[in-house]
Amino acid sequence: MSSLCVLPPECLLQPFTVPQRLMLGPGPSNVPARITAAGAQPILGHLHAETIEIMNQIKSGIQYAFQTQNRVTLAVSGPGHAAMECAIFNSLEHGESVLIAINGIWGERAAEIAERIGAKVNTLVTSAGGYFTNEEIEQALDKYRPVVFFLTHGESSTGVVHPIDGIGDLCHKYNCLFLVDSVAALGGTPICMDEQGIDIMYTGSQKVLNAPPGTAPISFSERACQKIFNRRTKPISYFLDMNLLANYWGCDDKPVRAYHHTGPVTSFYGLRESLAILAETGLENSWKRHKEVAEYFHKGLGEMGLKLFVQDKKARLPTVTTIVAPPGYDWREITGYIMKTYNMEISGGLGPSAGMVRSSWF
Amino acid sequence: MSSLCVLPPECLLQPFTVPQRLMLGPGPSNVPARITAAGAQPILGHLHAETIEIMNQIKSGIQYAFQTQNRVTLAVSGPGHAAMECAIFNSLEHGESVLIAINGIWGERAAEIAERIGAKVNTLVTSAGGYFTNEEIEQALDKYRPVVFFLTHGESSTGVVHPIDGIGDLCHKYNCLFLVDSVAALGGTPICMDEQGIDIMYTGSQKVLNAPPGTAPISFSERACQKIFNRRTKPISYFLDMNLLANYWGCDDKPVRAYHHTGPVTSFYGLRESLAILAETGLENSWKRHKEVAEYFHKGLGEMGLKLFVQDKKARLPTVTTIVAPPGYDWREITGYIMKTYNMEISGGLGPSAGMVRSSWF
Repeated sequence: MSSLCVLPPECLLQPFTVPQRLMLGPGPSNVPARITAAGAQPILGHLHAETIEIMNQIKSGIQYAFQTQNRVTLAVSGPGHAAMECAIFNSLEHGESVLIAINGIWGERAAEIAERIGAKVNTLVTSAGGYFTNEEIEQALDKYRPVVFFLTHGESSTGVVHPIDGIGDLCHKYNCLFLVDSVAALGGTPICMDEQGIDIMYTGSQKVLNAPPGTAPISFSERACQKIFNRRTKPISYFLDMNLLANYWGCDDKPVRAYHHTGPVTSFYGLRESLAILAETGLENSWKRHKEVAEYFHKGLGEMGLKLFVQDKKARLPTVTTIVAPPGYDWREITGYIMKTYNMEISGGLGPSAGMVRSSWF
Repeated sequence: MSSLCVLPPECLLQPFTVPQRLMLGPGPSNVPARITAAGAQPILGHLHAETIEIMNQIKSGIQYAFQTQNRVTLAVSGPGHAAMECAIFNSLEHGESVLIAINGIWGERAAEIAERIGAKVNTLVTSAGGYFTNEEIEQALDKYRPVVFFLTHGESSTGVVHPIDGIGDLCHKYNCLFLVDSVAALGGTPICMDEQGIDIMYTGSQKVLNAPPGTAPISFSERACQKIFNRRTKPISYFLDMNLLANYWGCDDKPVRAYHHTGPVTSFYGLRESLAILAETGLENSWKRHKEVAEYFHKGLGEMGLKLFVQDKKARLPTVTTIVAPPGYDWREITGYIMKTYNMEISGGLGPSAGMVRSSWF
C-alpha cells in the first residue's frame, strides 16, 4: 500500500497509440520517415563533439535555406514563438521605437511581445488579405523612425505572401533593422536574406522543413549584430540572450562553448535531416514545386466553385491556401467532416480569417 | 546551374550517423527504446483532440510525479531553463523582492534571471557543497520579506540534495511563495509538492524521466495562482505567460483552448511515455532504486580510493555524484579517457565544482 497522496493515474497505465493523419493544415506538417528516424537516434550530450558537429551542420543548412553568409545563424531551442521573442528581445531595448506591419495575426503577436518589453510600438495596419507597398512602408519609416521594422513574409492567417524586394534598402536608408518572420513561407517561396537586405529572419521546423515542432532557425546580419551585441541593457531573457546563444552555437570568437542551456539534442537531429533533405532537393526545386502544386490546387478549387480569400494571384502564399467557407456552411462542419471522413487535417481560420478554412500543401 | 548565392553545404550531403553512448553525466540521460518509439509516432496537430488527450495524460503524470493536486500543472515547450524563466517571469513583477538560495550554479542563474526582469534580488549564499538550515532561511525571510523564495532541490553542480521539510510553512508564515527547482532530483529522491507546501516547482524531461530534452514539467499551487493571475503587469514573455499557457493546457475554466503556440507534439509523446514508465514503476520504487544504486556506487568509489565532494552522507544527491579529481589529475584527462576508451559520458564540474567530475546514475 502506497503512502503517497497522489496515486499513479489510470490514463497513463494504458498503451500509447497515435493515429496516422494526413496533415494539410498550416503546420505541423507530416514528418517524413527519414526525419523521424533521425530523431530516434541515440541521445548524445548537448556539448559532445558529435553534437557540436551536428549543430555546425544545422548552421550551414540554415545559411543555405536562408541564403545568407551570416555567422550568427543558429536554431532556437523552442517553437517559432520563441524565435519571435528571441528576435524582438535582442533587437529592441526598453523605450526604443519599433514599426510593425500588421496584415494578420503575426504582426499582432509581434506588437504584443514588443509592448511587453516596453518598446515604443508603432503599427502599419492593412485589412486582412492585403499587403503594403514600399511607398507606404517608407512613409511609415520616415514618420516613426524605428530602430526595427517587423514584417511577416508568409502571413498564414490570411494566405498572403508579402513582397520583400526593396524593403531592406528602405530600412537601411532610415537606419533601421529589417526583421522578417518567415515561419510559414521559408523554403516554399523565394526569399534571399543577404540579397534582400534582411537583418533578422526566423522560421519554424514544422512547416516547409517537415521536422517536428520544437526548434526554430534564426539568423542575424552583421548590421543586426552591431546593434544586439552593443546594447545598453541585457536582453530580458537569459534563455534567449543572443550573446549566450551565439557562444553556445560557436558563432563568436571565443575558443570554448560554455554551457548555456540543454539543447533539445534529438530535435536537432531531426532538424539537421530536414535541412539535408532541402539541400539535396535544392531550394529552387522546392520553390518551383510549391508554386506548381499551389497553382494546380487553386485551379482545382476554382473548378469546384470554391472561392479563394486572396484575390490577387501574385499575393497568394504557395504554402498556405485560404478558402472562403461557402455561404450557409460553418467552417467547423467542413473541417470536422474532412477530419472524420478522411482523417485529414485542414484548419479553421485564425485571427482575421476566422470563419474561413485554411489548407497547406507543403 | 543555380543562381543562388549560397550553395547546398557539403556537410549536409553526407549520411547522418550518431554513436551509441552510455550517458552517465548529469543529463541528458539515455532514452529507453519505449520512449524513443513513442516520440517517433506520427505527428498530430497541436490542438487535435488526441493531442489534447495526451496533454491531459501528461498533466496527470506530472501531478503524480510531483505529488500534487494542482490544477495548473503542465509542461513548458522548452528545456529546464525555459521553465525556470516561466516560474520567475510569472511569479515576480518589476521591483518585487525575491530571496534566492545559492549553493551552486542554479541559484546563480535564478538570480540572474530575476535581475533581468527588474526584481529586487536578495541572496542567501553558502559555500559549494553546503546547504541551508531552516533557521538561516527564516532569518533571511524575516530580513528581506520577499514575495518568492527560490531553492534548488538537487544542486547538480555540487551533488547536494537540499532538505525541504518545514520550508514551505516558513515561507507561508512570511507570506512568500516557495519556488523549487527540482530539475536534477525529481523522481530520484523524495519530494511531495502539496505535503511540503511548495508553491511552484519545475523539472526537466531529460533527467530521471529519461525523455529527450525539450519539455519541462511545471506546477503552480492555488496560492501561487492567486498571485500570478492577479498581477498588475503582464509577464514579460508572451511565450511563457501562464495565463495563456494555462488555457492552452486546459487548466482554466474557459471552455475552449485558444491557439497560443505550436507545442512540440512528438516531444509530448516522449514525455507522456516517460511519465507512464514512472507511474508503472511507482515513485517510491524509483526513489528506493536511486538511493540503493547511489549508495552502492559511493561505496565502490570509496573502495577505489576516490573522494566524494559532499562529506555529509545525508546531503548526497542520489541522482548526481560529485567526485573530487585525484591530486595530480586534470579532470579533462579523466573524462576524456573514459569517453575515448569506454564511449561513456561522465562530466566535468560546473560552476563551483569546476575541477571536479560528476556522474549520475539515473
